[in-house]
Amino acid sequence: MNLKKIAGFAAAEEIKDGQIIGLGTGSTTHYFIEKIGSRMKEEEMNLMGVPTSYQSFLLAKEWKIHVTTLEEHDVDIAVDGADEIDPDFNLIKGGGAAHTLEKIVDYSANELIIIADNSKMVDQLGKFPVPLEIISESTKPVFSALKDMGADPQIRMAKYKDGPVITDSGNFVVDAAFHTIENPIQLEKDLNSIPGVVENGIFSQMVDKVILGTNEGVKVLK
Amino acid sequence: MNLKKIAGFAAAEEIKDGQIIGLGTGSTTHYFIEKIGSRMKEEEMNLMGVPTSYQSFLLAKEWKIHVTTLEEHDVDIAVDGADEIDPDFNLIKGGGAAHTLEKIVDYSANELIIIADNSKMVDQLGKFPVPLEIISESTKPVFSALKDMGADPQIRMAKYKDGPVITDSGNFVVDAAFHTIENPIQLEKDLNSIPGVVENGIFSQMVDKVILGTNEGVKVLK
Amino acid sequence: MNLKKIAGFAAAEEIKDGQIIGLGTGSTTHYFIEKIGSRMKEEEMNLMGVPTSYQSFLLAKEWKIHVTTLEEHDVDIAVDGADEIDPDFNLIKGGGAAHTLEKIVDYSANELIIIADNSKMVDQLGKFPVPLEIISESTKPVFSALKDMGADPQIRMAKYKDGPVITDSGNFVVDAAFHTIENPIQLEKDLNSIPGVVENGIFSQMVDKVILGTNEGVKVLK
Amino acid sequence: MNLKKIAGFAAAEEIKDGQIIGLGTGSTTHYFIEKIGSRMKEEEMNLMGVPTSYQSFLLAKEWKIHVTTLEEHDVDIAVDGADEIDPDFNLIKGGGAAHTLEKIVDYSANELIIIADNSKMVDQLGKFPVPLEIISESTKPVFSALKDMGADPQIRMAKYKDGPVITDSGNFVVDAAFHTIENPIQLEKDLNSIPGVVENGIFSQMVDKVILGTNEGVKVLK
Repeated sequence: MNLKKIAGFAAAEEIKDGQIIGLGTGSTTHYFIEKIGSRMKEEEMNLMGVPTSYQSFLLAKEWKIHVTTLEEHDVDIAVDGADEIDPDFNLIKGGGAAHTLEKIVDYSANELIIIADNSKMVDQLGKFPVPLEIISESTKPVFSALKDMGADPQIRMAKYKDGPVITDSGNFVVDAAFHTIENPIQLEKDLNSIPGVVENGIFSQMVDKVILGTNEGVKVLK
Repeated sequence: MNLKKIAGFAAAEEIKDGQIIGLGTGSTTHYFIEKIGSRMKEEEMNLMGVPTSYQSFLLAKEWKIHVTTLEEHDVDIAVDGADEIDPDFNLIKGGGAAHTLEKIVDYSANELIIIADNSKMVDQLGKFPVPLEIISESTKPVFSALKDMGADPQIRMAKYKDGPVITDSGNFVVDAAFHTIENPIQLEKDLNSIPGVVENGIFSQMVDKVILGTNEGVKVLK
Repeated sequence: MNLKKIAGFAAAEEIKDGQIIGLGTGSTTHYFIEKIGSRMKEEEMNLMGVPTSYQSFLLAKEWKIHVTTLEEHDVDIAVDGADEIDPDFNLIKGGGAAHTLEKIVDYSANELIIIADNSKMVDQLGKFPVPLEIISESTKPVFSALKDMGADPQIRMAKYKDGPVITDSGNFVVDAAFHTIENPIQLEKDLNSIPGVVENGIFSQMVDKVILGTNEGVKVLK
Repeated sequence: MNLKKIAGFAAAEEIKDGQIIGLGTGSTTHYFIEKIGSRMKEEEMNLMGVPTSYQSFLLAKEWKIHVTTLEEHDVDIAVDGADEIDPDFNLIKGGGAAHTLEKIVDYSANELIIIADNSKMVDQLGKFPVPLEIISESTKPVFSALKDMGADPQIRMAKYKDGPVITDSGNFVVDAAFHTIENPIQLEKDLNSIPGVVENGIFSQMVDKVILGTNEGVKVLK
């Protein structure tokens, strides 16, 4: 069974006619967008999407979901993926380097649903390195600050492009391995206080609901 | 008397042979860079500069100051301007929209000297709106967060270009009028925690020395 | 009389229900967008706009014109301003630093209407310097190539921001004074062949109609 | 035998003390930069490098090659790789998405040497798709123009980042398969005339010398 598909399709059933939807980025939200697109067609729903990346924009277009912006419309509900989810619904995101715009859209949404296969649930955040989007000129001082905080940082290198991965906003990504994160709420703030850090991949205190794909089917956590 | 020139020239006298210098941006640091350039020539000093903007890069080049980067060299001493300075040396910067890279360079420096004419000294920060560099897509939720914090935000509009000012890093500038700022240390952190804020213009707890130009000459505060 | 308003309002009368409109940037198109907005409301027209800048996006939003993208919709008609118009309808654009996206949208449109006050009509292009959007790293070789072509280039400096104007796409603007331009069609190609030039402000062979505001009223040229 | 290493090391032997060197991007120039670094150390040479990407900047730093810019210094000699080389020394470059800055630096250099393993020599350009760096908003009209020119275009998708590859300058890459290219000189100009194309990967009429790594050793073509 495709656990990502189970979660993505289940979340799509929560969407109501007339809503403005924040469209997360990644392989799980891919299924969500696909299902939204087919519901729109079959049920003649009137929906609009606010993409969180070029990827989700292109996908929305493929499924003929009308695209809009935060500037024009408030987001009723955002549906997004995650790389790690702890029991308090704190997240690590950014494996796809889209976490800055994802955080902007998710944070502005009236309701945030996270979808994932159940392997993403962890007891404590930190095994997955925390992605940071940084201004390129700040690489060295950011590394130095991260090391002082106990992390092991690496610039994310690209494929099909020489040198570092560049984000949709034109910045670098640093993956900071903390191994275990005692206090994600505090860490999220501390990371954003490092000069040069545009946004970090810890999303604390934002999630309303988690929909997991499991081998036994859909599991909903609130 | 040109008070900016008095401050800029005085700071240039603090520079020692062999140092790596953080080159701030703006009309006061302009005089600093000019004086550094002429000292280098006259005294055959060996200096290198890390610019904080295209402007200070172009100026360094004009004065034949060898340019380097944070990646290659640690900064011994940064010299920068300010829009407001309080008695605890907390600053508001960003009138020139260069505060993100300024904060990266100033924060990484071993020593930070602020230069200004004495009109920039205030009892309490806040009369000058706090400039924020933001991801363009986040304008509306950032405005909403700023209003919740009691500020009156405005997008900074450009001249000689239609629409908003764009920073050297490709982002928007929002000027957030707080009028009075009770706790700049906390505000600096809170502003950076708003999704979409790349960096804000409050520089707290970073300054080692302030050099003011006054009608009575140079005044040094430590 | 406000000649820009005359031209902008006249162009707005050409728009038909159901069209996708390319929304140019600048003070003349401002009136066009305003009039489109009020026609939409009064006549219950169903229109969508593709903005050519943040400025025209913000204006479209203000007038509740539904915004879309080239990716999603083909442009039926684009309406844009100009800094100089010659008798063959070749243009110089870019005083507002938006000419790259303007050229992308205008070029893709099925029909292109230029609106201006009649002072913009010239016998020969070239009194207005040609704006080029360039990759910042290329400034020196671009200057050198422009001088070889007989132009006098200058980096456009900003106001309310220290250093150069930065475009919506994150690049520099160079204003290249050619004084007289014998062959705009050839010059447009030659300028785009200089490494580092993203786009130049000569728009040749693209215009279908010119609508001028004059002291005697509207004047239409085809 | 490592043919890339043979070519890269041979080119490094051409460098003379005091030169300013354009540092190409990619796996072959990697060896060139490495060898330049070790020559600098062993022979106490005084060299400076102008990088063509973050990758070559980071490599220069690793080998302690002093980095400078086009703004500060003219390039004496540039050494760069290629994806295809025809008998007239026209090239296709951009497999590493760095061709815009490479073209800026290579074009400004007094002398340009191309290094490659001998598999890169072809009778006619075109088997390798031509990489174009484009403004993201222009994707659809650029695709349309490319198809009219007989090409089969694709957006280059990233790995370790969801969605398209983003260049160091913040743009998209389109790979346009022409299969056979009759006139690369004309095609280079035509591609740069498409609105939205920042730069294309055809480098015609720029190369002074080609150094190939072959199983029989170094082969130099002039």
